[in-house]
Amino acid sequence: MAEPAPARALGDLSPSEFAAAGHALIDWIARYLDEIDRYPVLSRAAPGDVRAALPAAPPDGPGSFAGLLQEFERSILPGVTHWNHPGFFAYFAISGSAPGILAELLTAALNVNGMLWRTSPAATELEQLVLDWLRQLLGLQSAWSGIICDTASIATMLALAAAREAHPGLAIRQRGLAGRPEIPPLRVYTSGQAHSSVDKAAIALGLGHDNVVHVDVDDAWRLRPDALAEAIARDRASGLLPTAVVATVGTTGTSSIDPVPAIAEICEREKVWLHVDGSYGGIAAVVPELRPVLAGVDRADSLVVNPHKWLFTPIDCSAFYCRRPDALRRAFALVPDYLATTPADDVVNYMDYGVQLGRRFRALKLWAVIRVFGATGLAARIRYHCELARELARWIDQTPEWHRVAPVPFSLVCFRYAPPGLEPAEVDACNAAILERVNASGRAYLSHTKLANRYVLRLAIGNIRTERRHVQEAWDLLRTAAAAVAAERRSPDQTPATRRSARSSA
Amino acid sequence: MAEPAPARALGDLSPSEFAAAGHALIDWIARYLDEIDRYPVLSRAAPGDVRAALPAAPPDGPGSFAGLLQEFERSILPGVTHWNHPGFFAYFAISGSAPGILAELLTAALNVNGMLWRTSPAATELEQLVLDWLRQLLGLQSAWSGIICDTASIATMLALAAAREAHPGLAIRQRGLAGRPEIPPLRVYTSGQAHSSVDKAAIALGLGHDNVVHVDVDDAWRLRPDALAEAIARDRASGLLPTAVVATVGTTGTSSIDPVPAIAEICEREKVWLHVDGSYGGIAAVVPELRPVLAGVDRADSLVVNPHKWLFTPIDCSAFYCRRPDALRRAFALVPDYLATTPADDVVNYMDYGVQLGRRFRALKLWAVIRVFGATGLAARIRYHCELARELARWIDQTPEWHRVAPVPFSLVCFRYAPPGLEPAEVDACNAAILERVNASGRAYLSHTKLANRYVLRLAIGNIRTERRHVQEAWDLLRTAAAAVAAERRSPDQTPATRRSARSSA
Repeated sequence: MAEPAPARALGDLSPSEFAAAGHALIDWIARYLDEIDRYPVLSRAAPGDVRAALPAAPPDGPGSFAGLLQEFERSILPGVTHWNHPGFFAYFAISGSAPGILAELLTAALNVNGMLWRTSPAATELEQLVLDWLRQLLGLQSAWSGIICDTASIATMLALAAAREAHPGLAIRQRGLAGRPEIPPLRVYTSGQAHSSVDKAAIALGLGHDNVVHVDVDDAWRLRPDALAEAIARDRASGLLPTAVVATVGTTGTSSIDPVPAIAEICEREKVWLHVDGSYGGIAAVVPELRPVLAGVDRADSLVVNPHKWLFTPIDCSAFYCRRPDALRRAFALVPDYLATTPADDVVNYMDYGVQLGRRFRALKLWAVIRVFGATGLAARIRYHCELARELARWIDQTPEWHRVAPVPFSLVCFRYAPPGLEPAEVDACNAAILERVNASGRAYLSHTKLANRYVLRLAIGNIRTERRHVQEAWDLLRTAAAAVAAERRSPDQTPATRRSARSSA
Repeated sequence: MAEPAPARALGDLSPSEFAAAGHALIDWIARYLDEIDRYPVLSRAAPGDVRAALPAAPPDGPGSFAGLLQEFERSILPGVTHWNHPGFFAYFAISGSAPGILAELLTAALNVNGMLWRTSPAATELEQLVLDWLRQLLGLQSAWSGIICDTASIATMLALAAAREAHPGLAIRQRGLAGRPEIPPLRVYTSGQAHSSVDKAAIALGLGHDNVVHVDVDDAWRLRPDALAEAIARDRASGLLPTAVVATVGTTGTSSIDPVPAIAEICEREKVWLHVDGSYGGIAAVVPELRPVLAGVDRADSLVVNPHKWLFTPIDCSAFYCRRPDALRRAFALVPDYLATTPADDVVNYMDYGVQLGRRFRALKLWAVIRVFGATGLAARIRYHCELARELARWIDQTPEWHRVAPVPFSLVCFRYAPPGLEPAEVDACNAAILERVNASGRAYLSHTKLANRYVLRLAIGNIRTERRHVQEAWDLLRTAAAAVAAERRSPDQTPATRRSARSSA
C-alpha cells in the first residue's frame, strides 16, 4: 500500500518557505530593475562561460531556493544581455513592465492550461475580453476575433495556413499538397523588407521558400502595389496559385509602412488572403494621432500585433486577429475523444484555432498592463518614444558625415556614418567598427541591418525605462566611436592585420 | 524637443510600488496554494460569466495593482479550473512547484529574448545545460541535443519537418510540396492511440490528414510492429513515401507504451525518421526502476518529454531532443541581415532550429525545479504517484461492477462502472452520468476517453499536492455517484427527458 506522503515531504517548498523565497526574490527584482543601468547592457560572457560555471551533472539531493538565487547571481546573471536596460536599442527594444511581470507570476501560480473553455473558463473569456480591449485601443472594427499566440512567427504561420485552407475545393488539410497534380504551387507575396517569419511559415507549411515572392519596394522601403499586382498577374498567367499577401506595418529593417489600402484593394479583387504583420508598428495605433498607421487594415483577413514588443508585456504575448475565424478553425479543429466536451457548449475552445494544444493563461498579463496603465498611460509612453526617435533623427540630420537612410514613422532610426571620400565597402567597415565599439561600452546596445546591400545602424527605442538622457548618451557614444574609428584609419602605425580584425567583427 | 520624462511618470510602478505589490501577491499565492483544496476543482462558471463581470471597454486612466488583485479575486478566480487542486485527475494532471513558479517570475523580470546566443548567452547555455541534465536523469545517451519548445505539439511538428527535410534530394524546404509530380504523398505512421498533435502536425506541414496512417494496436493499446511493417510495405508498393513514425511512451488515452525497440528496428531498416512522443510517460524515466520505459529510445531520431506535464514545471516547457540536429537546422535556419552575427561564433543560435523567433528564458524554471528537488526528490514524487495509481487499480479490481480496461504502467488508471445486465450504450450513459456527478462535486475532476468506441473514465495522478487521501476521496465519490446513478435508473418516477439530459452531458 502507498504510505501517506505529506505533500511537502518530497521536495516542494512549504507555504512559508515559498513566501520567504518569494519575498526575497521580489526584493531582488525591485533592486535589479532600479539599478538596471549599472549592468553592461550586452553581456560580456564569452561562449561557454555560463555553462562552465555550472555543474555538468544534475544534483542528486535537494537544494535551497536561497542557494539557487546566489548561484543565479554569480553564474548566470553575467551571461544575461539586459533587455531591461534603458540603453537597449537593438532589434526592437522591448520591456516588461511591473504589472506584466507580476501577472506572469500569477499565471505561473495558477498554472492552468486553457486548451478548452472548460479547463479554465476565465482563461478563455479573459483572452477574448482583453483582445477586444486591445482591438478598441487600436481603433479597429468589431468584426475581428482574437487569439493570443506565443509569437508573431506562429501567428503568421496560422494566418497562411488559414489562407491555404481558404481554397476549400482543394481539401489541402485533408489530402495535403504532395502527389496532387491538380494543385499548382501556392504563392505568397510580401516585400523584400518583410520579416523572415513569412519565409519560415511558408517553409513550415510545405509551400516552399521559392514560392515566397519578395515584391519590390519604393524608395521609402514600402511594398509597391503596382509590382504586387504585376507579380500576381504573372503568376496567374503561369498557372501558379496566388494564396496570400503579407503586408507589414513597421518593417523590421526600417519600420516602413506598406500601403495597406492599395494592397487590400488588390487582395479583394484577386480573392487573395491579406495578412498584416503589425508586430511592432501596429501597436503604435494605441496613440490616437498615430491611428492612421493601421489605415486599411480593417479590410485585411488577419493581423498580428505584439504586446510583448511595444506594449510593456513580458515576452511571450502576440495578439493574432482574424476576420475569418471560421477559416482558421477549418484549418485546425480536430477534437479527439478525450477532449470532447458537450456539443451544446456555446463556447470557444481555443485549441481549435491552431497547432498548439497547451495554452498558458497569457491574457492575465495583457489585462494587467492595460488595466494598470490605462489607455492614456500606454499612449503617453509610446508617444514619448516616437518623440525621442524624431529628436535623434534631427540630431543626425544636423550632423555632418552622419546620414539617416529611412523615414522615422515610429521609434526606430536607421542611419550611418559616411564621411566623404570613402569607398562604399570602407563606409560599411567603419559602421561595423562603430557598432562594435558602442556595444562593447556596456552603455548602449544597437543592432544593424543591410539596406540596398549597405551596412546600416539601427537604434530602436521601445524600452519603458528609456529617457532622453539615454538616447543622448547613445548618440554621444556613436560620435565618439566614429571619431576613434576615423583616427584609427588615419593612423599610419596601424598594421593592416589589426585593421582587418577590427572590421570583420560586427 | 522631447521633454525629459521621468521613467515612472508614464504608468509603470516605482520600485517600491513594485515591491509592495509583489509582496502582496506572493502572500496571496502562498495562501492560495495552501488552501487550494477549499476551491471547487472544476470551475462552476457558466459560459459568459467571467466576461460579463468585467468592463467591456478598456480603462482610460491608470489603475492600482491592489485594485487589480481585488478584481481578479472577485471576477476572474471563480472562472478558474484549479489545475493545482489535489483532486485534479483529468487529462494528465500537472502542477507547477514553488521553485518553478518563482523562476517564472524571474524569467518575466529578466524578459530576455533568447533568439540568438548573443541576445542572452545565459539563456542559450542554461538551456543546453539543463536539457543535458534532464537527458542524464532520463538515462539517455549523450548523442542527443535539446531545445525547449513551448508545447509537445510544436516539438512534434518540428520533428516531422526535420523528417520531411531528411529526404534532401526532394528540396521540400526550398521548393515545397505542391505542383511537383516527382513527390508522392509523404506518409506518417502512428497508432490509433497517438496524440492528436501528430495529426495536427501533418496538417500544418501540408502532408495532409489522410497521410497519417493510424496503425492497429494490440490488446494493451500498443502499436503493433507487424502492422506497422505491413503498412509501410503496402505504401511503398503503392508508390507512397514513408517519412516518419511516431511512437508513444505513455499514450493519452491509456498511457500504453509502444514497443519502441521493435519499431526502431523497422525504422532503421526502412530509413524512416522515428519520433518518440514521451510527453507524459517519458518523464517517468527519472525514476531509476522505471528507466526501461524508454528502452530503445536511444535509437530514435527525436524525442519529446514535457517537464510541464510531470516534472512540476509550470506550463509551458517541453523538452525536444534530436539526434540529428543538423536535419532540424537544415529545415529551418534562415538568417536575415539584421540577425546576422559573426560567422566565427562557435555558438548555437536557437532561432535556427524552429519556426519561432522569439524565445522566452524557459530554461530557468527547469533548472530551478531540478536544482531544488534534486534527482532523488523528483524520482520520489513520481514513484509515489505510480504507487497511488497501482493502489487505486487494486481497489477497482477488488470491487464488483467496476472494471479496469487498461494496464497501469504509470499513474493513469482507466476503468468503468459496468453492472451486469445493461446494454453497452446504457453502460456508457451510466459512466457519463457518474463523471458528471463527480465533477460537479468540486472535490475531484476526472476526464474520459473512448476505447474500442466505449466510454471510459480516466483518473490521472500527477499533481504535486495529491496524497493518498485525495485518491481515496475520488474513489468514494465515484462509488457514491455510481450508486446514485443506479438508483435513478431503477426509480420508476423519473421521466425519460430528465434521464436523457443527465446522460448527454459529459
